[in-house]
Amino acid sequence: MKHGGDLITYEDSYEDELIDFSSNINPLGTPDGLEEELIKGFKSLNVYPDIQYRRLREEISKYLNCEKDQVLVGNGAVEIINNFIIDSKRVLVIKPSFSEYEERALANGKPVRWIFYEDDFTIDIGKIEKEIKEDDLLILGNPNNPTGLRIEEDILIQIYNIIRKKDAFLLLDEAFFEFSPIDYDSIEIFKKYEYKNIGIIRAATKFFSLPGIRLGYGCTNLEKVKSLREVELPWSVNALADIAGSFIFKDKEFIEESRAYIDRERRFLLDELEKIPGIQAFETHTNYILIKLLKYSEEEFFQIFLKSGILIRKCNSFEGLKGDHIRIAIKDRSNNERIVKVFKNLEK
Amino acid sequence: MKHGGDLITYEDSYEDELIDFSSNINPLGTPDGLEEELIKGFKSLNVYPDIQYRRLREEISKYLNCEKDQVLVGNGAVEIINNFIIDSKRVLVIKPSFSEYEERALANGKPVRWIFYEDDFTIDIGKIEKEIKEDDLLILGNPNNPTGLRIEEDILIQIYNIIRKKDAFLLLDEAFFEFSPIDYDSIEIFKKYEYKNIGIIRAATKFFSLPGIRLGYGCTNLEKVKSLREVELPWSVNALADIAGSFIFKDKEFIEESRAYIDRERRFLLDELEKIPGIQAFETHTNYILIKLLKYSEEEFFQIFLKSGILIRKCNSFEGLKGDHIRIAIKDRSNNERIVKVFKNLEK
Repeated sequence: MKHGGDLITYEDSYEDELIDFSSNINPLGTPDGLEEELIKGFKSLNVYPDIQYRRLREEISKYLNCEKDQVLVGNGAVEIINNFIIDSKRVLVIKPSFSEYEERALANGKPVRWIFYEDDFTIDIGKIEKEIKEDDLLILGNPNNPTGLRIEEDILIQIYNIIRKKDAFLLLDEAFFEFSPIDYDSIEIFKKYEYKNIGIIRAATKFFSLPGIRLGYGCTNLEKVKSLREVELPWSVNALADIAGSFIFKDKEFIEESRAYIDRERRFLLDELEKIPGIQAFETHTNYILIKLLKYSEEEFFQIFLKSGILIRKCNSFEGLKGDHIRIAIKDRSNNERIVKVFKNLEK
Repeated sequence: MKHGGDLITYEDSYEDELIDFSSNINPLGTPDGLEEELIKGFKSLNVYPDIQYRRLREEISKYLNCEKDQVLVGNGAVEIINNFIIDSKRVLVIKPSFSEYEERALANGKPVRWIFYEDDFTIDIGKIEKEIKEDDLLILGNPNNPTGLRIEEDILIQIYNIIRKKDAFLLLDEAFFEFSPIDYDSIEIFKKYEYKNIGIIRAATKFFSLPGIRLGYGCTNLEKVKSLREVELPWSVNALADIAGSFIFKDKEFIEESRAYIDRERRFLLDELEKIPGIQAFETHTNYILIKLLKYSEEEFFQIFLKSGILIRKCNSFEGLKGDHIRIAIKDRSNNERIVKVFKNLEK
């Protein structure tokens, strides 16, 4: 199980429809009016998307509050990450993290080195300083998947300074940005540096509930944009993702409501999980929770939940977690209550 | 102008809506019922596409008449071509041809060598035999873009035999397959070899009028499928392309009608263009026509048509055409008559 959300593989394991706690999508769904917008956009399927994605990049630049020419778009965040990797010499990752960082590097024949997060999933800056070399691409999840933690602002700035000093490159994968508490915005922080030696990637996938539409975006410095342009596939963003991206970011109400909703449900789930013996739920800045299993194996746990109609994410594919962790999504209240009930039944 | 279909760049050059003769899309549009199918599929935007594309590959295997496990899918044909390139050591192309063959090779740091088509745009097999080395990837458009010609069956088999003998790999880009006369089907021809040393790529883009949805597909041998799996981006085909691909190939009536329509319009346009002095229109097996300009420059020609509200494709970005060719699409009768009128007015 390399990725969550693979319902089809397990669909025959349960008589009714499986509830997917293995992938992390906003329980409030998509902004109102998107369907109508997409239906209006069907006629655009007959023509090529704008190869320069002018309107889309304009809308994203307004949402991110950066220059239009600094905007990147791609077929999901993972394609943009892949492009940065192609355009780099060597990749450095901190584990456990999204497995594609390393896999895309290997697929593109780039050497990969890795270090590990500390036991509390924070970063030891000394380790980065020791390991990073000129032209290296350091990829950090912020918040990180599956650990759920966001890098603290002062730590992030210290890391960036090391990157600048060594003339390496920092790639922040912020696919879960909008779920995080509003403390800092990396796009604001690094604006004054004109994103020199840094790229920041976000996505419509998680917060706007659009994993199927495939829309990743981000920003970086103009020189890097130009150099990535040589690597990018033409027309990589499909016409409906183009339309969706020109629509969803304007819905401030959806954004506020979703943040508040996830905040509340995150508190609810963490409070409930704290009462469950035999597990340790970690604090999170995202819409998922990493759980350490103190008495069970991942597979035992996976099967128990599958029998209750719930697909959870085993974390054995994340190197650095030693096969005793699972990850669950934060969903709507009724589903969250349902999964809590299964946890409570564990002891019986 | 690296690619056709870039209407936005020229939209202010003409007071009314520009007619796009620069990209080659089936004038009959998409199969009936597709819109309803896509609307039903909106709910699937909230979930990740099946990471293995099981249903889609099943439907494509039926359409292509190959094994399900031999099927490849991608975010447009160009992504699949790109994957073959990543998975190769060196690339050989014959020019003039689709510029992305060479550009994707360069983007991925692969050495590229090239030879040229003969003056009549046929292939000199001796040149291939001389140039091809073990592990090389030879990419051939079949029919080729922008020349419009399909490789004759016996020539194709001779090329394949050379490829086998040298243990190289042949990649046929058949994005325009369905527009061609029904003489042979390369998927049938190479079935008995289990697609050893060969891959065949097709697309929904041109014939099914879906450039916006981004769906390429193809087939190759099982070993290559496995090796490409390591290179492919996860979820590269979006959910609506997945749905479209499970729908459009069943519409045999659309396929028959489109073939007949293009046949008729191809004849009409070629007959009309033959009467125009100062140009030479080449025979074609596709839905576009390459035209050599005997008295005009490409830019002059481009501007004349732009002033008449028609966007044509300059061919100066195709190496091997010496800057004196244009390419026009074959469209519906009323648009074809419109472009013929502009040609006829040239002399006045």
